[in-house]
Amino acid sequence: MRLNHEYVTKVLTSFIKDEVEKVGLRNVVVGLSGGIDSALSATLATLALGKERVYAYALPYKTSSEESLNDAKLVADFLGVNFDVIEITPFVDPYFEKFADISRVRKGNVMARMRMIVLFDKSAENNALVLGTSNKTELLLGYGTWYGDMASALNPIGDLYKTQVWDLAEYLGIPEKVIKKKPTADLWVGQSDEDELGFSYKDVDKLLYAMIDERRSKQELVRMGFDEGFVKDVYERIRRNQFKRQLPVIAKVSNRTIGKDFRYSRDWGY
Amino acid sequence: MRLNHEYVTKVLTSFIKDEVEKVGLRNVVVGLSGGIDSALSATLATLALGKERVYAYALPYKTSSEESLNDAKLVADFLGVNFDVIEITPFVDPYFEKFADISRVRKGNVMARMRMIVLFDKSAENNALVLGTSNKTELLLGYGTWYGDMASALNPIGDLYKTQVWDLAEYLGIPEKVIKKKPTADLWVGQSDEDELGFSYKDVDKLLYAMIDERRSKQELVRMGFDEGFVKDVYERIRRNQFKRQLPVIAKVSNRTIGKDFRYSRDWGY
Repeated sequence: MRLNHEYVTKVLTSFIKDEVEKVGLRNVVVGLSGGIDSALSATLATLALGKERVYAYALPYKTSSEESLNDAKLVADFLGVNFDVIEITPFVDPYFEKFADISRVRKGNVMARMRMIVLFDKSAENNALVLGTSNKTELLLGYGTWYGDMASALNPIGDLYKTQVWDLAEYLGIPEKVIKKKPTADLWVGQSDEDELGFSYKDVDKLLYAMIDERRSKQELVRMGFDEGFVKDVYERIRRNQFKRQLPVIAKVSNRTIGKDFRYSRDWGY
Repeated sequence: MRLNHEYVTKVLTSFIKDEVEKVGLRNVVVGLSGGIDSALSATLATLALGKERVYAYALPYKTSSEESLNDAKLVADFLGVNFDVIEITPFVDPYFEKFADISRVRKGNVMARMRMIVLFDKSAENNALVLGTSNKTELLLGYGTWYGDMASALNPIGDLYKTQVWDLAEYLGIPEKVIKKKPTADLWVGQSDEDELGFSYKDVDKLLYAMIDERRSKQELVRMGFDEGFVKDVYERIRRNQFKRQLPVIAKVSNRTIGKDFRYSRDWGY
């Protein structure tokens, strides 16, 4: 899981620059939550494009913690990128008022998707692509909102486990306060990713690396010392959330079906 | 392009039933715009699951036409499905008020994405999957909102050209008023798909079928009698909108990258 920091930084910054420029655009838009994932994405984009070409937004809800907003500002200041705060409260509260019995989880999904709306709208305004901020751990576990925070145009950190995100963030000199803080989706007061998931990122990353990157079988994983229940739980999460890593499934009735026989890369023809 | 109606209906209804039930769910949620695409999706779902298991919503904005809403109601009545009207006006107007210089196109995208939010939230409430309503013509031309109306869990009509949607709708007895009306996204008053696109669905479907399903080259298409400018315009639209038919692009730095080497079908493991 150890990264060659210099090499990975080069790959990820080239990726951002290439993907943005080959479709004829100049800029990226990124939502800064105050957490480490969006801080790393924004940092890589700043290295790739220069600070003038990065538009960062903090998108707090009224129950979001003051600390998250301050940390988002800290990252924006550190990078010197364009930065704005857009409260989503007035956009989502009318929905929560209309459907007053909505659960905490559903509320969280509405908020994540509202942030997506703002970011994509701002990308249209700024001649930009929306930068993804989901890491590989979250994507594999399905710990995120489909068509919400999991939606983006390009994701520079989607192949880095959380452990690697921390590691690369340190190498790039991202403010320690942001690296050291407890991971949270900040969807309600006191939310903690690791409490909610029931395991630590460090532990699950070791398992995921062995399971996915090294393709170890369940039997091997147990022999390596991973708890059998933990292996089953994580495998089940990955499997159950496969739909979030997929395009809508289209029923095939023709010779060439989108996503099946009609399938090109995004830069096809550029 | 001619359909075997009975066979296609069987394939599409089995698809809906299988996809919903194999992930342990019972129902579908569908947005009814008053247009033919959502009417056909809802009809197929009703045939597949029975009317009690289909939750249809009309999601008008204050500028949406009265006729669209009436047609949505007409379809819901025809099918006998669960039906509700949820105005999106109070959810999107605060955004439009805050960003008063927002363009008509950006507004349309915000509305399409807000409808997505409502439908996915209602799917969580109703133990349901969100049914897609984008046809093959729209998907190929990129005539829709990414993460908006193009977002769904499963799409029974995504492999049918608009011409085939009309054809199958007639076979299934969908009210003629809905089949005969002029296609519109109804994002602003008087909007017409065909005016906006600059060609008719009938014409472009013939071209798309030859270009995509029959894999004809540009030279062949011109020899077949298609106007060269038309061929170029349509080809360019398909290419330029490839990103809308894609997942977010993830920069590859590991052995197994999501969407690249880690790629399973949605029902993997079920």
